[in-house]
Amino acid sequence: MRIECIAIGTELLTTRRIDTNSVWLGERLAGLGLGFHRKTAVGDSREDLAGLFREALSRSDLILTTGGLGPTFDDFTKELFAEILGVGLEEDAASREDLLAFYAARGRVPPQVNFKQTLIPVGAEPLKNPVGTAPGVWWQDPPGHSGVRVVMMPGVPREMKRMWDDQVEPRLRPLAGQAVHTLRMVVSGVPESALDEQTREARGRHAQLDWTILANLTQVELLARGAEAADLEAARRDFESVLGDDLACVGEANLEDAVLAQLRARGETLAVAESMTGGLLASRLTAIPGASQAFLGGVTAYTAQAKAAFLGLDSDWLASVGTVSEPCAKALAEAARARLGATWGLGICGNAGPGAEGGAPVGTVFVALAGPDGTSARSPRLAGDRAEMQLRCAAQALDLLRRTVSASR
Amino acid sequence: MRIECIAIGTELLTTRRIDTNSVWLGERLAGLGLGFHRKTAVGDSREDLAGLFREALSRSDLILTTGGLGPTFDDFTKELFAEILGVGLEEDAASREDLLAFYAARGRVPPQVNFKQTLIPVGAEPLKNPVGTAPGVWWQDPPGHSGVRVVMMPGVPREMKRMWDDQVEPRLRPLAGQAVHTLRMVVSGVPESALDEQTREARGRHAQLDWTILANLTQVELLARGAEAADLEAARRDFESVLGDDLACVGEANLEDAVLAQLRARGETLAVAESMTGGLLASRLTAIPGASQAFLGGVTAYTAQAKAAFLGLDSDWLASVGTVSEPCAKALAEAARARLGATWGLGICGNAGPGAEGGAPVGTVFVALAGPDGTSARSPRLAGDRAEMQLRCAAQALDLLRRTVSASR
Repeated sequence: MRIECIAIGTELLTTRRIDTNSVWLGERLAGLGLGFHRKTAVGDSREDLAGLFREALSRSDLILTTGGLGPTFDDFTKELFAEILGVGLEEDAASREDLLAFYAARGRVPPQVNFKQTLIPVGAEPLKNPVGTAPGVWWQDPPGHSGVRVVMMPGVPREMKRMWDDQVEPRLRPLAGQAVHTLRMVVSGVPESALDEQTREARGRHAQLDWTILANLTQVELLARGAEAADLEAARRDFESVLGDDLACVGEANLEDAVLAQLRARGETLAVAESMTGGLLASRLTAIPGASQAFLGGVTAYTAQAKAAFLGLDSDWLASVGTVSEPCAKALAEAARARLGATWGLGICGNAGPGAEGGAPVGTVFVALAGPDGTSARSPRLAGDRAEMQLRCAAQALDLLRRTVSASR
Repeated sequence: MRIECIAIGTELLTTRRIDTNSVWLGERLAGLGLGFHRKTAVGDSREDLAGLFREALSRSDLILTTGGLGPTFDDFTKELFAEILGVGLEEDAASREDLLAFYAARGRVPPQVNFKQTLIPVGAEPLKNPVGTAPGVWWQDPPGHSGVRVVMMPGVPREMKRMWDDQVEPRLRPLAGQAVHTLRMVVSGVPESALDEQTREARGRHAQLDWTILANLTQVELLARGAEAADLEAARRDFESVLGDDLACVGEANLEDAVLAQLRARGETLAVAESMTGGLLASRLTAIPGASQAFLGGVTAYTAQAKAAFLGLDSDWLASVGTVSEPCAKALAEAARARLGATWGLGICGNAGPGAEGGAPVGTVFVALAGPDGTSARSPRLAGDRAEMQLRCAAQALDLLRRTVSASR
């Protein structure tokens, strides 16, 4: 089955908007053993969209579109596709009722322009939009294109995702390819190239699987896909011993989830004191529901005042050891741990630029962990821009915690 | 000039990789007064890429491609395009020297496969790659397509950007459209739809400009583009009075920058105490270089322990007023301000889900600001998932601060 995606909207071509819908759809298709052969973004131009839709009809079996279902003049996906396929539009009574109900629930009546959203091409089926006003369209075997399916969805990600999950994917499941099983292993504290090297032989032992290595600023993912669940299970067991302590977690979790899960399983807790990362580490942990079971809180000790007021660190002593130093990171970790009575305390200081700070060049960081058996530290040298260094540094702190906790089993 | 972008690579269709190159290129083109009419991502399939390239040749004047210039079997952009245009490949002597030098600098000799990277289509010009091994190609007036320009660039963002800046953009500048001037105004605390309504008349007064409204979770941007700088300057003056205190800043800055700049200009400082946002507000402020001039630090007071240990809030009192309440938010704001001796203190509490917390339904938030003239609070009702609510709540806090500081002028 040849599948293509058409993302409609001038903003996708000109500005800071990135088409993330098609990335999400690509993942969902992979889960069905399917995949795109092409993705296109096109502006709100009738001519460009018409040309693209004609091409797509000639080469694809399934055409997924996002966008252009709104009420305004620059939304015309349904009308244009109907015109190209030589059919008219008709009002869908249920969509009309849904629209009236949507506005009634907000104590309003729909503006006249919104009623064009209740029209669908003759011969197509409407797809309900329970979280917005733009219904979608499922159009199977449109005139002259037997075997083709055209699916029109809204461009708003939340509306598109809900429509896909509830109504589109269930219709596609019977057409799905061979089920594909996936294995996702998350590694932290190891560069992508080293992981590639380190796992080459093991990947060779599981060559019937498709392997991918994907790195971001905080972790590296090792992904495998294959037709047989047993093959993936065998690979998982093998890689658990090959990767050892480098393996943070398996499945959909990320480094932060792994660390919180590790602490929760042991009934232990964490406090943090962040200088260079300025709250980023706390923020990444508290983005996870239920974080407070293991994460007690922290301090953004970005200035000497904050280090003194919240953690009791003496400003003169700090000036003597340097605010970018191992003693400073250790003092931050120990004070955070002590103040909150946590099992573990992480302290972070460093220079993310611009400019040298207290003699420490940009990229210098110190990460310290205070725990039941004392305080340890590491000082990786980081590269990248300010935001990249803050992310990498937060990941270094989590990796230090993860490995230390794991070793203290 | 009709311009299209072709991003080549199966990873762009199947995994978590997003094609950000074309977004960057779209911005650069806009600076030249140019823009894409279409962007396509296609996999490492000769058939798909050949079909797409033929279509592109028939409809576009400038074709920008990224990817497929590497040394391995699944890199074939140059060979395929040469084949379609009916010409052979020849070795570029300078590219060969560059390749040898690149490896020599690393104390190695190039693997044999890399030498295919030194081949370019007969009649095309090589584009040097000073930061990698894949040269690009500038191909003007290829056989049978007079007036067309095909530009092949590497897929690695760093290499692509350097090649564009040094070699592609200078060649395009003589062809550039009329210079386009832009005006960007950032509004906070007003929903997109209300801003649309509120500015309709004023946009009508400046109808010679192209207007766009773009909302994200923390702010709304009002963008105008036009050929005459004077028109944009007139619009800016007009909108400053139309928007009044809703206008956070003009130019490339965002809400966080605006707040920090406002404080710095007055020699004032800020401390924060975050429960629901868990460090996100501090993190967004410290992402900005020089933040410490106005932002003294904060506390992630995610648990009762943290509220007691770092801010001295009494746990019994907290339990009696509720950890999701206006008194709690005010106490957080006042304690943060007092502990750091800051001009302003922000306190945030709320329930970002999942599940009710202390009787407060998901979406309930309280944001308080303590300052020289006392403490105020607001309690917007938020929607969205956990991450969205945390972002919206941080923006509400910054908006409260921005408007209060502005009114206390």
